[in-house]
Amino acid sequence: MEQKNYPWRGRGTTKDITGCRFSVSSMSDNFISMILGALKKVDTKKVWSATDVMSTVYRGKRIHVTDCLKACFAHFNDGKTHITMEAAISKGSPGDADDDVYLAEDDVPLNNTRIKFTTFSKMSFYPLGIADYMDHIAHVIRLAMDRGLHVETSHYATMLKGDINDLFDYFDAALIYAEQNIPHYVLQITLSANSPSQSR
Amino acid sequence: MEQKNYPWRGRGTTKDITGCRFSVSSMSDNFISMILGALKKVDTKKVWSATDVMSTVYRGKRIHVTDCLKACFAHFNDGKTHITMEAAISKGSPGDADDDVYLAEDDVPLNNTRIKFTTFSKMSFYPLGIADYMDHIAHVIRLAMDRGLHVETSHYATMLKGDINDLFDYFDAALIYAEQNIPHYVLQITLSANSPSQSR
Repeated sequence: MEQKNYPWRGRGTTKDITGCRFSVSSMSDNFISMILGALKKVDTKKVWSATDVMSTVYRGKRIHVTDCLKACFAHFNDGKTHITMEAAISKGSPGDADDDVYLAEDDVPLNNTRIKFTTFSKMSFYPLGIADYMDHIAHVIRLAMDRGLHVETSHYATMLKGDINDLFDYFDAALIYAEQNIPHYVLQITLSANSPSQSR
Repeated sequence: MEQKNYPWRGRGTTKDITGCRFSVSSMSDNFISMILGALKKVDTKKVWSATDVMSTVYRGKRIHVTDCLKACFAHFNDGKTHITMEAAISKGSPGDADDDVYLAEDDVPLNNTRIKFTTFSKMSFYPLGIADYMDHIAHVIRLAMDRGLHVETSHYATMLKGDINDLFDYFDAALIYAEQNIPHYVLQITLSANSPSQSR
């Protein structure tokens, strides 16, 4: 392929920026107030945050990004309405830049939501730019098994089931492994709660 | 990283299998009949199809997979309810296998839905296992610009806007480029219609 002077050449960031872009869905006529209400309840003072037509972005230190992401889904759950969250958590893109970020000085999560509820999840992990990516994917799936989560491999995704807090503790462990071993990666997850299909 | 005898060693498929895993959401109390109704209206005779708790998988020839995916979203749209579809379209995983697939003999799409409506989309393209992945990503984004779609780059995704048929014509073009140039890739897309945010 022809190598051109692409816009990211020489860019990237040396800052410790993890980010996520996520969208939440509420299977309810009342979806607007549910979605806006959940977003508002998250304390985002330790991340940079922006919401557009389709999704919301948090950028900052990993621990604060996942803290806000879990808080959003936990506050979104009213215990009865079927809700989903689709999120891409990413770090290390050569196209990233130093702007649109807030890096908090400390590692103390502001939300630290501990509401408990069963969550179904599908997950795909994408290490980018490296030949041994399948080995890293296998390692990340084994991390879920080692933690006792319910894990099923399937086409194009790994299916997980567990308490929301156990799932996010696992996502944090996977992201710590990733930032220590892989220059650029994306963890793509979907979360689901209160689905009528889940009682089958 | 330690190289172990991972389960996919020596596997993969030589068959021409494109697949997608997708989930649809309807922001309506009536979501169950809307979702099941849309899935049922798709003629899936030219793909392999399976639905689980969180999502549906189609596997077959690319042209039939995207034909079914577009048909599902088009049938899902009642012209007023806010709906979304999140889909990963993928080919070439070294962990793939020859089973769970139907490869139709011809390339004549069965659904060929031409219902027109404005669709917002976010898209992330992940070429895997190769060092020059950013160049391929740039090429795929340029393909969208060349087709006159409304394109905005953003953190972790490219935002697209256009008629649903133009978007899927573009996704097909991107996937044709990918299958000709990249051994393993994932095109992650989210589609949205009738969102109250879209009139802002």
